Amino acid sequence: MQLLEALNWRYATKKMNGEPVPQEKVDQILDAAQLAPTSSGLQPFKIIVVTNPELKAKIQPIAFNQSQIIDGSHLLVFAAWDNYTAKRIDDVFAHTAAERGVPASTFEDYSNRLKHLYLDRPAEQNFEHAARQAYIAFGLAIAAAAELEVDATPMEGFDNAALDDLLGLPQQGLKSITLLPLGYRDTENDWLVNQKKVRMPKSVFLSQIA
Amino acid sequence: MQLLEALNWRYATKKMNGEPVPQEKVDQILDAAQLAPTSSGLQPFKIIVVTNPELKAKIQPIAFNQSQIIDGSHLLVFAAWDNYTAKRIDDVFAHTAAERGVPASTFEDYSNRLKHLYLDRPAEQNFEHAARQAYIAFGLAIAAAAELEVDATPMEGFDNAALDDLLGLPQQGLKSITLLPLGYRDTENDWLVNQKKVRMPKSVFLSQIA
Repeated sequence: MQLLEALNWRYATKKMNGEPVPQEKVDQILDAAQLAPTSSGLQPFKIIVVTNPELKAKIQPIAFNQSQIIDGSHLLVFAAWDNYTAKRIDDVFAHTAAERGVPASTFEDYSNRLKHLYLDRPAEQNFEHAARQAYIAFGLAIAAAAELEVDATPMEGFDNAALDDLLGLPQQGLKSITLLPLGYRDTENDWLVNQKKVRMPKSVFLSQIA
Repeated sequence: MQLLEALNWRYATKKMNGEPVPQEKVDQILDAAQLAPTSSGLQPFKIIVVTNPELKAKIQPIAFNQSQIIDGSHLLVFAAWDNYTAKRIDDVFAHTAAERGVPASTFEDYSNRLKHLYLDRPAEQNFEHAARQAYIAFGLAIAAAAELEVDATPMEGFDNAALDDLLGLPQQGLKSITLLPLGYRDTENDWLVNQKKVRMPKSVFLSQIA
């Protein structure tokens, strides 16, 4: 099973060597994120792909000066919707109806149920729900990178508000949640590369009710 | 790229045919979840594997009577830690140190930083953080199932508190977040099986800063 091999191969790369990732591989990683299942298919997040060196240099101090921000060729910023809105919900179902060649009214009952459920809740609760969906895509992007033998470092450790300001995310109704620099491991200078991958055993991690 | 093929093949199966998934495939799906990267490697969640028919029958009404709960052979319940605790953090780093054959003190500074960060925060905030990590594993389990041509239906729609009570999760410091029934599509009776898979276009879903 290729996925398990890829997941065993990958690790949270601490030092990258600056070699650029080919665009076609980046596109496949983004395809995997785009194909992620999400609640009601709303895909309530956006990925910002940063390759601009000056911008990456501004992001690095916001992210505890982690070197992968600079040494990775592509920095993916995952940003979740700050809230659900009627327009956002309508846009998704209008697109689905158009793609399936069915009347827009097909999804009216369903989208009304979603609006009833979401639009009266606090924005913070909806953002948390959106963020969870984005983490599914984040996981699939990490897996896709590994399958392509591209290194990636999942990062939560950064100043979200500062990054949001720098990228103009509040004006887009978005809040940053994770970073994923893409690049290649610097085998000689990465302290983690030869450390054994450790996971809690299934006796702890699982329970079975048969 | 096999992952993209698998992600295109999968869909949120609405009707399963009752055929059981071989245990070795279930084990590989759980392996993928176990290998998911998580913040600081804490793996702050557990997967409960339910195959007991009586228990599945009790869960079905808690999950809006969705038929896949019964018709899937294995029901995975993803449950996140309800909070971070010193013991939970210590257990993970003790295990990592033992597996790597290094002194337990190796991770003392790091785990103290995590305790400083997490233990003063509200339980709800820590639970949300744990839940996000579980969604990475949830995504990888879905991908692994698809690669093995096992169908799976990601579900958030159920009464979390009722399921927690039924499974005794509060006593284990856990809260249910998602369900993933595993089985095989009933091609003749699933209304969704032949519907076009739709995702928002990259013009909406992505932005590039080059």
